[in-house]
Formats: sequence, C-alpha cells, structure tokens
Amino acid sequence: MEKVQRIFEIDPWKIRTTQLDKENRRLQESLTSIGNGYMGMRGNFEESYSGDHHQGTYLAGIWYPDKTRVGWWKNGYPEYFGKVINAMDFIQMKLFVNDHEIDLATTAFEDFDLELDMENGLLTRSFVAIAGGATVRFTFERFLSIVKQELAVIRLTAECLAGDAQIRVLSKLDNNVQNEDSNYEEMFWLEKERGHQMECSFLTTQTIPNDFGIEQFSVTGAMKHVSSAVGVQQDDALEVAETFTYDLKPDESMQLEKRVVILTSRDVPESEQSEKALALLEAYDASYEELLAEQNAAWAKRWALADVSIGGDDEAQQGIRFNIFQLFSTYYGEDDRLNIGPKGFTGEKYGGATYWDTEAYAVPMYLGISDPTITKNLLKYRHNQLPQAKHNARQQGLKGALYPMVTFTGVECHNEWEITFEEIHRNGAIAHAIYNYTTYTGDESYIQKEGLEVLTEISRFWADRVHYSKRQQKYMIHGVTGPNEYENNINNNWYTNYLATWVLSYTLENYQKYQAHATVTITQEEQTKWQDIVQNMYFPKDDELGIFVQHDTFLDKDLLPTSALDPAERPLNQHWSWDKILRSCFIKQADVLQGIYFFGDSFTDEEKRRNFEFYEPMTVHESSLSASVHAILAAELGLIDKSMEMYQRTARLDLDNYNNDTDDGLHITSMTGSWLAIVQGFAQMKTSTGTLSFAPLLPKDWDHYSFHITYRGRLLAVTVTQKEVRIDLKDGSAFAMMLYGQEITLKDSVSVPLEQEEPNV
Amino acid sequence: MEKVQRIFEIDPWKIRTTQLDKENRRLQESLTSIGNGYMGMRGNFEESYSGDHHQGTYLAGIWYPDKTRVGWWKNGYPEYFGKVINAMDFIQMKLFVNDHEIDLATTAFEDFDLELDMENGLLTRSFVAIAGGATVRFTFERFLSIVKQELAVIRLTAECLAGDAQIRVLSKLDNNVQNEDSNYEEMFWLEKERGHQMECSFLTTQTIPNDFGIEQFSVTGAMKHVSSAVGVQQDDALEVAETFTYDLKPDESMQLEKRVVILTSRDVPESEQSEKALALLEAYDASYEELLAEQNAAWAKRWALADVSIGGDDEAQQGIRFNIFQLFSTYYGEDDRLNIGPKGFTGEKYGGATYWDTEAYAVPMYLGISDPTITKNLLKYRHNQLPQAKHNARQQGLKGALYPMVTFTGVECHNEWEITFEEIHRNGAIAHAIYNYTTYTGDESYIQKEGLEVLTEISRFWADRVHYSKRQQKYMIHGVTGPNEYENNINNNWYTNYLATWVLSYTLENYQKYQAHATVTITQEEQTKWQDIVQNMYFPKDDELGIFVQHDTFLDKDLLPTSALDPAERPLNQHWSWDKILRSCFIKQADVLQGIYFFGDSFTDEEKRRNFEFYEPMTVHESSLSASVHAILAAELGLIDKSMEMYQRTARLDLDNYNNDTDDGLHITSMTGSWLAIVQGFAQMKTSTGTLSFAPLLPKDWDHYSFHITYRGRLLAVTVTQKEVRIDLKDGSAFAMMLYGQEITLKDSVSVPLEQEEPNV
Repeated sequence: MEKVQRIFEIDPWKIRTTQLDKENRRLQESLTSIGNGYMGMRGNFEESYSGDHHQGTYLAGIWYPDKTRVGWWKNGYPEYFGKVINAMDFIQMKLFVNDHEIDLATTAFEDFDLELDMENGLLTRSFVAIAGGATVRFTFERFLSIVKQELAVIRLTAECLAGDAQIRVLSKLDNNVQNEDSNYEEMFWLEKERGHQMECSFLTTQTIPNDFGIEQFSVTGAMKHVSSAVGVQQDDALEVAETFTYDLKPDESMQLEKRVVILTSRDVPESEQSEKALALLEAYDASYEELLAEQNAAWAKRWALADVSIGGDDEAQQGIRFNIFQLFSTYYGEDDRLNIGPKGFTGEKYGGATYWDTEAYAVPMYLGISDPTITKNLLKYRHNQLPQAKHNARQQGLKGALYPMVTFTGVECHNEWEITFEEIHRNGAIAHAIYNYTTYTGDESYIQKEGLEVLTEISRFWADRVHYSKRQQKYMIHGVTGPNEYENNINNNWYTNYLATWVLSYTLENYQKYQAHATVTITQEEQTKWQDIVQNMYFPKDDELGIFVQHDTFLDKDLLPTSALDPAERPLNQHWSWDKILRSCFIKQADVLQGIYFFGDSFTDEEKRRNFEFYEPMTVHESSLSASVHAILAAELGLIDKSMEMYQRTARLDLDNYNNDTDDGLHITSMTGSWLAIVQGFAQMKTSTGTLSFAPLLPKDWDHYSFHITYRGRLLAVTVTQKEVRIDLKDGSAFAMMLYGQEITLKDSVSVPLEQEEPNV
Repeated sequence: MEKVQRIFEIDPWKIRTTQLDKENRRLQESLTSIGNGYMGMRGNFEESYSGDHHQGTYLAGIWYPDKTRVGWWKNGYPEYFGKVINAMDFIQMKLFVNDHEIDLATTAFEDFDLELDMENGLLTRSFVAIAGGATVRFTFERFLSIVKQELAVIRLTAECLAGDAQIRVLSKLDNNVQNEDSNYEEMFWLEKERGHQMECSFLTTQTIPNDFGIEQFSVTGAMKHVSSAVGVQQDDALEVAETFTYDLKPDESMQLEKRVVILTSRDVPESEQSEKALALLEAYDASYEELLAEQNAAWAKRWALADVSIGGDDEAQQGIRFNIFQLFSTYYGEDDRLNIGPKGFTGEKYGGATYWDTEAYAVPMYLGISDPTITKNLLKYRHNQLPQAKHNARQQGLKGALYPMVTFTGVECHNEWEITFEEIHRNGAIAHAIYNYTTYTGDESYIQKEGLEVLTEISRFWADRVHYSKRQQKYMIHGVTGPNEYENNINNNWYTNYLATWVLSYTLENYQKYQAHATVTITQEEQTKWQDIVQNMYFPKDDELGIFVQHDTFLDKDLLPTSALDPAERPLNQHWSWDKILRSCFIKQADVLQGIYFFGDSFTDEEKRRNFEFYEPMTVHESSLSASVHAILAAELGLIDKSMEMYQRTARLDLDNYNNDTDDGLHITSMTGSWLAIVQGFAQMKTSTGTLSFAPLLPKDWDHYSFHITYRGRLLAVTVTQKEVRIDLKDGSAFAMMLYGQEITLKDSVSVPLEQEEPNV
C-alpha cells in the first residue's frame, strides 16, 4: 500500500499537534489554513520564522494575469495565466524578548501547542520561549470573522514565567510579498497610499499594470490594536507598522489584540477605501469575546445543516469535518461573482478561480446542504461567461462555446496543449450541472433561458468538434484528454464521446420543451445534424469483457493492476517520466466510471459492476477527484470495503497527505468528496429522476452516521445505525420519496431496518 | 498553391538585389549570411541600422546552457536548453558624414546594391548616401576566410560624389549582445580583458557561469586596420573601438580595411588568447587581394568536387548552389568536435548543435562529395556521446541509449514531452547512418567496434521501450511522435516500429558477423528476446488500400488532399490551433515514406507507388526535410513533374521562403535536399547493396545536369543530357557498377542513351 503521512492528532473537531514539525512546516501550514470566503491564509506564524515555510495570504477575486510562459509556443495558447496572488501579510507581529527576536527556527522553546478548532475556525498556538534571559509563554489566537467578512482578529497573550522580560511587538501590514510561481519574478503589488490616523494605520496597494486589459485591483488594509501599551507608529515602503512594548516580571502577563479590516476595489472604490476601512474598525467595536461568540454562533448554524456525524470512527469523523470546514472557509455562496478555486486560500499553486470541479463535484453537495440560490449562482457564473467561452472556441477555430480549464474571467488561462485544447470533456460538465440542478430542485427557470443558451453554444462546439469517419461510418472525437489525465491526445475517449452525445441530445430535448420561451434559435439544419451525431456516434466497447473501452487503443496496453506497482514509485507523477505514465494502463481518476457515475440511470448493474471491476484495479487515484466517485459506485455495487477505502482516501486526502503534495495547499474542490461518498455512496441518495431516494448501507466499523439534506424546500435528517434507517422531516411539507426501492410518504419521520448484505471483502 | 516570397534576383552564382527591403530585412539578412565552418554571421550591415533586423554573429561550438523554461514541469525534462549564442559583433563600423550618422533606416540613399557571390563567399554592398550636405558612395566587401579560419576581412571604400565630406568611421569589437531567445533575459557574456597594442585592439570575453557544470567559454577578438588614417582608440564596457577620420572633396575617396581574428577556448586557453590573436594578425600580413585570391582558390576546389551544374533552369541552378554554399559555410568536416546545427551561423532559433537531420539527411550527401573520414567523424561524434545517450534513456526509466533530439554534449536539451520523450525514431536514424556509411564505403572498421557498441545500446533501448500486447499477441510501441510532427503521442507509428525492428535485426546480424572482435556482449537472453520482437512486431497496414498505415487510427481521420486547404491558412502551423493540426490528416514531412526511402530495397515498386500516391497528396511539406525525400521517391516512380515540384521546394525553400520562417535563419540541415533530389532522385543513385548504380532521368525543362561523386576511392563525373548519360572515371581504378539495371565496367568513360518514358503529368 501507499505511504501516508499524518502529522496531526486524531480528534473529531480539532486539528492539533504539540510538535513544531520543521521538516514539514509547509504541510503544517496548509492544514491549519483558515478562511472566511472573503479572505484567508495559510497557518503561518505571526512572528518571524526563518525555517522553510510559505507565507501566503489570499483575497477572494484578487488576481493578476501573469504573462504566459512556455518553452515552445503553440497557436491558440492564452496570453496570460491568471493567478490568485499572494496579498498583504496582515497577521505579522514580530516578537522580541529583551531585544532577542523570537524565531522558532532558531529560538529555544518548549511546550509547543497548535490547534485549529473546526467548530468555529479559531486557530490557537502557544509555546514557551527561552530567550534574552527570560522564559515567556506566548499564545496567539486568530480567526477570520464569517459574520463581518472584512474583519480579522488576532489576540496575543504573553506571560512571563521566569526572568525579567521586556516584550516588544512589531505589528505590521506588510505588502512586500511575492508569488512563489511568478513567471518573471515580478512583484505584483504597488503602493498607493499609507498613513496613520488616531490609533489606526492603513496601507493601500494596487496590483501592477498588465498588458491584457485586466483591471488593476486595489486593496486597503487597516489595523487597530487594543492594548494597555501605546503603539509607536513607523513606516516603510509597502508596509505600515506599530511597535508595542511591555515590561513583565515573573507571573505578569500582557495582552495585545490586533484587528484588521481588508477592503478591495471589488466592493469599494480605491478613493474611499482607507476612510471606509477606518470607519469599519471603529464600527466593529465589540469585545474579543463578543466577536468570538458571534463567530461561534455563525459556524454553529452552518454545522447544524451540514455536519455529518459518524459514530465509532474518529479518523473518518475528523476527515469529513476537515473537508466541510475548509470548503466553507473557501466558499459559502455569499458572493455570486466568485467561484471555488482549487487551493482556496491555502496556496497559490495552479492559479485560476474556476475549474470544472465546481460543476462535477461541488454542485451536487451545495445542492444538498444549502439554499438552491447558491447553486443557481454557480450556474449563472457560467452563463455570465458565455461570451468568453465563445472566444475560447474561436481560439481553436471552432464554433460555439468552450468553457475553460482554468479561468477568472471565462477566458482560458491554461497552457498545456494536451489540456487547454484537448481536455474538452469539461465542456460537458457545465451542461451536466444544469441537469443536476434542474432534476434536484425541480426549478426550471434557469434551464428555460440562460441554461438553454449555455447548452446550445456547448452543443455547437461539440457538433463542430466531432468528425465523420468515412471508413467507420461513424462520428468520432479525436485528440482529447479524458478525465484520466495520465493519457493525452487519445481518440474516442468513451466518456467524452458519451458526454458530448448526451449534451446534444439533452439540448435538443430541452429546446423542444422550452422553444416557446427560448432566447436562442437552433436552426432546423443544426437540429438535423445534431440528431445525426446522436444516432451515429462511435463508442468504443468490448463485448467479450462487457465493458466500455476508455479509448480506441486502451486494450492494447500492458494491462496490470496497481498492486504490481512498486510502492516506492508512488505517486507515479512524482517518479515516472511523463511518457511512461502515458503508455501505462494506470488511471489517475475515474474516466469511464465518471460517465457511469454521471448517468447512473442509463446503465445496468451488470454494466456498472463489470466496468468497475475492470477499471478500478488499474486506478492509482492520484487525482484528488478520484476517490469519491469510486466510493459512490463501490457502495452502489455493495463493495463496502472498497467504498470505505475510497471514503478514507477522499476524506483524509490532505490530512494524511496521500498524494504527497499538500504542502502546496489543500485540495479544496475535492473537499466535497467525503460528503458525496457518504450521502450518494453509503446512503445511496439519488435525485436524477425527480424523486428523492435512499438505500443506505453502513460501513462495518461504524456505529452510525447521520446528516441533513435540503430538498425542494424541505429539511431532512437521515440517520443510519446498525439497526435502522431513520429519516426525519425537520422542515417543509410531507412528500413521496423512495427508500430501499419502496415508495414511502415522509410526513414527520420514517424508520426502516437497515438492509445490508454481508459486506464484500 | 502556396505563396512564395522571392526577394533576390535569379542568377546562377549570385544572391543579388538592388532593393533595401526594410519590411523583410531579417529575411534579407538570413539569405546573405556567410560562414567558414568556424564562425559566421547574418548579412548584417557594418554601420548602424535602426530598422527591424536581427544582429547575429555565431562561433562554432560556443554555447550556453540556458535554464529550462516551461509552463508545466514534467518528470524527465532536461535541466537546460543548450543555445548557440549570439557572440561578439566584430563587423561593426559606424559611419558618419559631417557628423551625421549613416543609418539606412533613416538616411536618404540611392543606388543600393547587395550581392553575395556564392563562388567565393564574398558579400558586397554599396549605396550612395546623401547626408550632412554631401553625397558619398560607400562600398563594403566582406568575407570569412576558409583558408585562415580565424580571420574575417572587411574592406570599406567611400567615394565623395558631391559636397565636402568628413567621413568618420567608428570600428568596434562589441560584445554587448543578447540572445533574442534568452529564457531569463540574461546577457550571456562577461568581459575578461581588453586592450590596445600597437595598431591593434583586442577584447576577451567569457560566457557567464551556469549551474550545470558546463564549461565557460572564452572568446578573444582582435582587430587591426589598414588605412591612410591613424586610428584613435577608445574603450567601453564589453567593447573596444577605434575611430578613423577622412576629409574628402568631390571625386576623392578613402579605403579602410578591417581584419579581425577570433580565438576561442575550444582551441586556445584564455590566458594565451590575446597574445596569440595579435600574433595572428601580424602573421596574416598578405594584402586584401592576396587573401581574396586564396579564398577564391579554396572555394574553387570545393566547387570542383561538389558543384551540380544544371542547364536551362537558372532558378534550379541558383537553388542548389545556394544550398551547397550555405551547407559548406556551416560544416566542411575540418573539426570532428562539431556537428551541423539547424541554423548554422544564420540565426539562434532552435538551439543545439546536433539533430537527427545529420544522420538522415547530411550523411548521404557528405558520403558522396567528400572523403569518407568526414562522415566517419560524424559517426564517431555519436559514439563519443554514447554515455550521455545512456543517461537520456535512464531519464525515461529505460535501458540502453537514447540519442537526443537536440544537443551539444549528447545530453538531451529539448523540452516538449511529445518530442523529447516520444520522437524516439531519431534513435533509429543514428543506426541507419552506420548502415549507410558501411554500405557506401565498404569500410567495416567502424561498425566492428564503435558502431556495434552504438547499435547494441540503441537496441537495448528499443527492446525495453516496446511492450507486448497480450490481446494482439504482438509487440507494440505506444506513445510516439513519428517524423510527421503534426501528430503526437500516437501508437504503432509504422515508421518507428519498422525502424526499431530493423535496428534489432541489423544489430544481431552484425553481432554474429563481428562477435570475435566485438567490444560488447549481447547475452543469449537478449538475443532471444530481440529475435522474438523482430518476429512478432505489429505493423499497421491496410490490405484493401495496399498501404502501410501511419499509425493505429490514422485511417479513421477525415482524409482530405492538401488541395482542399485554403491557401490563406498555410503554413498550417502559423494559422491553426495545435489540436486542429493534430486531428487533421495533413502530414508535415515524409513518415511512412521516410521508411520506404530508408529501406528502398525492401519494398516492391507497387508498394512504393501505392504508399506514395496515398500519402503525398496529404503532405503539406512544412518541414524543411520533407521535399527531398518526396523528390527522390517520385523520381523513382517516374513521377517526374512531382519530383521537379519537390526539387524546386527543397532547392529554393529559403530563397523563396516557402515556410514563411526564413527570417529566423536558414534551414541548414535540409540544405542537402536538392543534392539528394538530383543524385538519388533524378540520377537514381543507389549504394545500399554495395554496388553503385544509376538510372538517370532528366526533368523536361532542363538541358542537362552534371555532378561528381566520390565512391570507394574513386572520383566519378556524371552528366545527363537530353540524349545521353555519360559517366567519367576521373580518378581511381576501374570497377563494376550498374547503369539502368545493366552491369557495366567503368574504366575511363561510359555513355548510354537517356532512358526515359514520357514524363507523367
């Protein structure tokens, strides 16, 4: 089996360690990231730390178009790669004890404790430093308010344990920050203004100009301190600072609270930012305890709806809570201009704000745990970017719309030909989310107008992208990369062909249905052509094996199970030359199985089983998106151990650093995986027919699990124990649904015995 | 048909124009490049020119390992890309008339004349400048000595036509030069020393340090002027300069001769360079006329052996002379540490010194026009780099040796996965050159030892790179790019599979033959495995069409002839998105046909015809290497018009800028194409059986063509007229050969009537 790396303790609600792991400080930072949808940061220290680490603060929607850098330019490549940029470091509080700077890479210390409380997003850290002839316990508490999104709060407590200690704190707003992956080693920030007013300081900065017509964003940070000491203000380029000094004798202590307000030009014009920021600092005059109390209440409300409780397995419990916590820290749907970035506020790798992950993996969960408006906003986001998607298609000389692999504005940012130009199945996921939303909510308002516009342009793309093979008398799609990115430039990827055909068919069906209201016209000629494609698309399959074939020549490969791999060579992408990966049979993430997951209604159990049994043993799950789909399908097939293995992998992907890359940041868009694995997997929730249904299983080591679901104006609580399945209607009107294949009417509550065969091994 | 762009006059020996083409100055510069195998430069002006142009001077074997730049790193990528670097600009002679600087981008001028004489490599330029109240005719003559390789000579003449003219000339050695494609916008040069001694100036520079253990090259330039005026010396960073002033009245004239000696650390240690350079300037004390006379004589000797005379078609004549001239300007085999770079001394694009072009396209010509030692040196060059080729294979996790796509040292420099890792057919070309050399010369000394070592390691690579498809019960090669680089990551490229199999077979055959002397051991197990691969390799073919299929799914494409293309969209690589090129059927260069060319003996005429008629109509010939192979095969099939079209394309590729990229530099390695098209094509010379044979055709618009061939210690002259084919044995002993399929004994001379059917249309 593969190596896992676990650096935090198991605890149902906490991410905690008593070790400063200098070798894995970046990993520690990633896993203690916090965010409030508006801003966020890695679990950096407030004071200086000279060891290897990655200081990273990020602001939602603030980015820079970094000029494309490639070794070899190819026609059609985008001009820039949009990057989530490292922004003002506003937590900085340098510590000095008798003029000795505290730096845990070099200073002697003991009694280190680091804890992220997932219940309320409070990050606490304490340690006892021995420096400058004194012994001092320092404690930092930090949270980003989810009630007052512009507000960050840090409280520092220092307690002198021995010796006389002069404590000096140098607190800054520091914008001397650089992206680790800046293509040309540029700084992305300019200073615009800085100043001090009363007991506050502020700094206004702006992103540097660019050649691509992208707006220059302005950001103002303002800080105010609450303390017994009076701050001494000082300044430098791209930073403002204040110094606080305290003289402590043994057993004496000090406390310094730092409050920061961040405003950006996305909401407030630059000219008004400093004034408004200072006003907000004044307005937010509640005490630390009051601010924390409202934070607790707000998180409690989120958890009441979204928490999944698991009995008897704290590893599993911690995993799913970590996922939900980090997902909500990134996106809770308050701002419809935003989307769900792959690293959220936890790192700067990959860039872009929006991937197909949103439609394929996030939409199904947000449908289940939030108001439909949030999901509809995610759909509208794509409708708003339709002109840019048409631009992307034109870049490739094609009709219609191609949604991007990576983007901020809708314009494609990615620049590997095998991905940018060829991983076009993403275009189908955009359509599938419309289907998901409509069948889940029953709300037809989106598909009738905006949705149909999106579907039509995506269909035009597919109709132009296929070609007709005279030899085979079939339509084909050559030169694609499927969801399995460990193969490139393949022909007739079954998933892509299936999805493209489905989109054409679904568009035609809805055009018939809503033609009277439609804001688009699909010509008769187009309709005929699309029908022809639907009827004559080529799908690779193998009758003998009873499987759909991943692509034309997949079965010619040297087919081996992952058990044949040397564990020392995993993850493969960190050990094998790219060509070796491509030639191998090993699959990065669900590909044929992604299609079977998306269109479960269209396949027999036997088809599902055969394909699962053929493909899963060759799958290395080196994409964070892989395990959840496999968990769901395995559960449906009653392969409860495999499902549990996959649940573990998706739920603890980052906590156990499965793919040896969490040091770069968390895998935010796959944070929905554990929720999907439980709700769509173990509980077998299905919604695509318009009737809600469940058929729960229980993993053998679990005592129970329970969760809530919003469904068509109702709130349901589902509890699965070793004895029974209980569904409570917490809110909303009675309705008919299915449980274990039987129609039931859910009024207040329904209980049935757990139906489960002996688990497969 | 495609657009061609012809900016020089047609002339059998000259490249001449009376237009300063400011819009196409880069193209003009490329086409007037000169070189002497040791150094060379683009056709830059000596005086300042502020219009768009590309100043480029290059020194053989002087390069810099520029850190790899890619958008997305993939395992196995090389650390650096070796670049031929722009070196000291030593031709610089700024001109001032009454303090007005002459700059043809802005100065008024008339009577412009630019001429490159291919007979002796003399570049002459003159113009009449109207500036500063005077009218002056300036004439520059420039050549790089092929007798004294370190020596460059420039002669400036100025004649005052009207007004009083004070002429000032500022002559420099200037190393403030930068590469257009430097990955990190670095300067690659440091100054080490500069000075003046007597009437000479010198500058010693060194390439900047690098992180890859590659030597830092030192270069010294020294200059001396011959003139009535006395030079005033002056200095600046990375340059030395001297000023000469002349006062001319109407009808008076001046002359200034600049001689430059260049030495590099490849031949002379840095500490001795300046002294030795100054000594050489003293030693080379012949007059301009004497130096030019020995230059003429040396070129005359080259032409006597290599010239191909064509009667009745000056376009064709100019084309082949241009090709031979530029090829010899790049490489004439004097220095066995060098190879034939893709741009020679005419540009800095592509980088690297060595491509498979050398083995596939240059070796066959050098065998025919030079001493076998030169070709043997080219083979030894690869044997010397065998350890590095083994390193390249290990980078991909494979056994044996993989010769690089692009290199200086043997270590791979290129960094596109689809090329670096997948265009592995290059490894077969290295082996094929050994076969070519051995069958042409009859010399078995190389293959017995060094050759067999190279063959064995290449075979080990192939044996590890194939896989066995259990399903098809055949060996296959997945994930390659064939010679047609307009398809990537294809499976079972017929050419690659054929070549790999041939290498295994050829290696086994020679191991049997030379085992007694062999310096390698091929184990019995290896031999058995290789035999098995030879016997069970999969080759895609189509019996109905009677063709070998380019790769597994080629026939599923939308197959169209190039005549269906919009001429405005050609060359495709400058107009189409990469994915569209990959999906299309259009072929960049000979692929299946490259195999048929390499192994002509192994295929029937019918096979050759069917494949040619199937593939050529889909071929866009956008690689400079394409046309020659097609010219040869078309001639063999009697398709004389097609062969002539292909001859024209290869011979005038740069002169007519077929691929719209000659502004970057000339296509040096394909300069052999026109010679091959005539000798192997029209004259149908074959050597692979060990018996020399000809079966000449004559293109219908030509009066005659004639050329010389060296063959196994003999010199032959072949003349083909409309009436007859005449072969004269100019040197060496009588021997048996084939002419039109009949064995003849060539003693002094043989003539037979021209055998030619009516040309096909």
